[in-house]
Amino acid sequence: MPDDHSLKASIGQVSQQAKPIVTVFGDGQLARMLQPAAAELDIHLRILASSGEQSAAQVIPDVVLGDYHDYDTLVGASQDADGLTFEHEHVPTEHVQALIDAGYNVQPQPSALLYAQDKLLMRQKLAELGAPVPRFAAIETVADALDFFGLVDGRVCLKARRGGYDGHGVWFPEAHELESLVAKLLDAGTPLMAEEKVTLTRELSVLVARRPSGEVKAWPITESVQRDGICAEAFAPAPGLSPELAERAAKVGELVATQLGVTGVLAVELFAFNADAGEDIAVNELAMRPHNTGHWTQDGSVTSQFEQHLRAVLDLPLGATDPLAPITVMANVLGGSADPEMPMRQRVREVMERYPQARIHLYGKDYRAGRKIGHVNVVGTDVAKTRRIAADAAHFLVHAEWAEA
Amino acid sequence: MPDDHSLKASIGQVSQQAKPIVTVFGDGQLARMLQPAAAELDIHLRILASSGEQSAAQVIPDVVLGDYHDYDTLVGASQDADGLTFEHEHVPTEHVQALIDAGYNVQPQPSALLYAQDKLLMRQKLAELGAPVPRFAAIETVADALDFFGLVDGRVCLKARRGGYDGHGVWFPEAHELESLVAKLLDAGTPLMAEEKVTLTRELSVLVARRPSGEVKAWPITESVQRDGICAEAFAPAPGLSPELAERAAKVGELVATQLGVTGVLAVELFAFNADAGEDIAVNELAMRPHNTGHWTQDGSVTSQFEQHLRAVLDLPLGATDPLAPITVMANVLGGSADPEMPMRQRVREVMERYPQARIHLYGKDYRAGRKIGHVNVVGTDVAKTRRIAADAAHFLVHAEWAEA
Repeated sequence: MPDDHSLKASIGQVSQQAKPIVTVFGDGQLARMLQPAAAELDIHLRILASSGEQSAAQVIPDVVLGDYHDYDTLVGASQDADGLTFEHEHVPTEHVQALIDAGYNVQPQPSALLYAQDKLLMRQKLAELGAPVPRFAAIETVADALDFFGLVDGRVCLKARRGGYDGHGVWFPEAHELESLVAKLLDAGTPLMAEEKVTLTRELSVLVARRPSGEVKAWPITESVQRDGICAEAFAPAPGLSPELAERAAKVGELVATQLGVTGVLAVELFAFNADAGEDIAVNELAMRPHNTGHWTQDGSVTSQFEQHLRAVLDLPLGATDPLAPITVMANVLGGSADPEMPMRQRVREVMERYPQARIHLYGKDYRAGRKIGHVNVVGTDVAKTRRIAADAAHFLVHAEWAEA
Repeated sequence: MPDDHSLKASIGQVSQQAKPIVTVFGDGQLARMLQPAAAELDIHLRILASSGEQSAAQVIPDVVLGDYHDYDTLVGASQDADGLTFEHEHVPTEHVQALIDAGYNVQPQPSALLYAQDKLLMRQKLAELGAPVPRFAAIETVADALDFFGLVDGRVCLKARRGGYDGHGVWFPEAHELESLVAKLLDAGTPLMAEEKVTLTRELSVLVARRPSGEVKAWPITESVQRDGICAEAFAPAPGLSPELAERAAKVGELVATQLGVTGVLAVELFAFNADAGEDIAVNELAMRPHNTGHWTQDGSVTSQFEQHLRAVLDLPLGATDPLAPITVMANVLGGSADPEMPMRQRVREVMERYPQARIHLYGKDYRAGRKIGHVNVVGTDVAKTRRIAADAAHFLVHAEWAEA
């Protein structure tokens, strides 16, 4: 690799380039969905991809092939870039730090990303900031687990501190299996934490963006529906949410973004539950990138989360986040147990025929059980009706048959 | 080139491809703006470009370099394509016909394009269909021009039958210059027509899309403002338009699309004028492709004209055309007399700072006087205020200074 000095010199010059360059470490649908916004704002997008067939590589001309675990590869993909960003949390922290030390503009920074990577550190930090969190504990021994089990009357949610997503790395052990499960996981070297299992009324999500110079903007609060630990639906503004709680949720998002120094899009997933004073919230997870619960913004908000992320990475002023309709619903297209005989392009045609208002988003990914291969957005006025349309359209794209008669 | 039979065989197989392929003959901003819709619907877009630096080539991975006047080049860019389409009317008709004869799905077809290419044939056809048109005449001699001048009391608009755009190829001659102008143009081999100059109250545009199997959908009627013959602003739904006239304008769009066999997006530019019974309309020009007066649909309609064009080319069901706001305004970013010292990326930053609701669209084109290098869309509720914001944002992108104090 070139020495730091020459790198810094070239980085210093890039603001003279006609168009900004943003490199994304990642090649999935989140990188892919940055491309429409990049094309519109004339931002040159470059991705680091594992192969030219990946979702994002299909629609972006500037593709660097390589492995994000390799530092020299990261540097190669970063040449002349005005900003570097991620679509996942797995780029080795030491490499990210080295890129920053070499003068690159990396957003978000590892000091913030840490809290999206390690659930225990996240809980500790949020508790310290006064954000609402369930009771939690570090689990380093079987005794820790038994203690916590007693403390919360058996209402235990056990989590891998790192690497879990979409329901992976989460367990709800019964009393009789707690000891053996914890012993097995600790033996396998899985760092653990436990938190009190919350009796949910629903799940909410507050999506905000923050730019390095400090501006923060929140979208309307989103309600999401999970099935088997995977987001199935998300819609906004969250129906029936009291203005007071909506305001408080937005404040949590702004607090987390600001206090953790997050840049780019931040999704704060929230549990909603019934408290004495009515509906209340606690923080579930953090994601520091465009997020599944924010896909509705592509068709339902003045500025989409993808455009906002690019603006934030380049420290550009953030766009308006007003909703464009009383309700916008997103339904995920999750691969089922078997790819139907009817080709996807025929399924798309039939959905278009039945639902001219459906906004179909496909990721160019092969069908696989449980895999996110697309989503459908629908704007509307009636929540129940709009949810039915989005769900039915997504169901047909998966199963080639209608859920609605 | 391969013989027709082998081409037809390969075309017969393409519907089995995982994703549809659409080839666009053209490399400008209209082709570029098809890319977001193509990525979202997982349509593989391929363009025929004159160089890799062209507007569309900057954001689309599959670029075939070549000259659209060369038939073999067209065939090369068409391999395995499910649909072929255009962003301009200049591909030689005989080549387009040869592609159709070879079995390719070309939309729109030359039988329709003819009426976008030749203004006299267009006028004759529309008059025959009963669509409202100004009085007109073929001008093959100076005598024809003098006759028509007398017929319309000197209110003559002289037009080149082919190749005019953005104010080129249009003249409003005074009595004393008519004879010499017509003689000069005819001597130079310019086929001419004349029409009665209409006293406009405003310009309207009806944008529709039609698919080969017949479905037609119109967007709300658009009002546009031209300066020096170039579209400066467009906004929809056209303010203050009577429901009856809106309906009648939409019917003209549907009539033209259907009777001329247009496929894809069709823009019918209309003159609005005061008649005895109130505001009335006559057809000005036709364009058979996404059109400048339809750019507002990117941010202001459920389905944009770019997505709709792709759907139509592939004979997919058309998307909903409902507006997303009471008013959406588009203002063009037209290069001025000199590119300001402030770099475009700094101008973009300042516009974002002042107008977070501005949707900026840039084409990746060099600044040149009178050249369309981008546009700004703004959704709003108040027509005058929304127009001011869009115009001010576009003005700053051109001049690096605010029109509004």
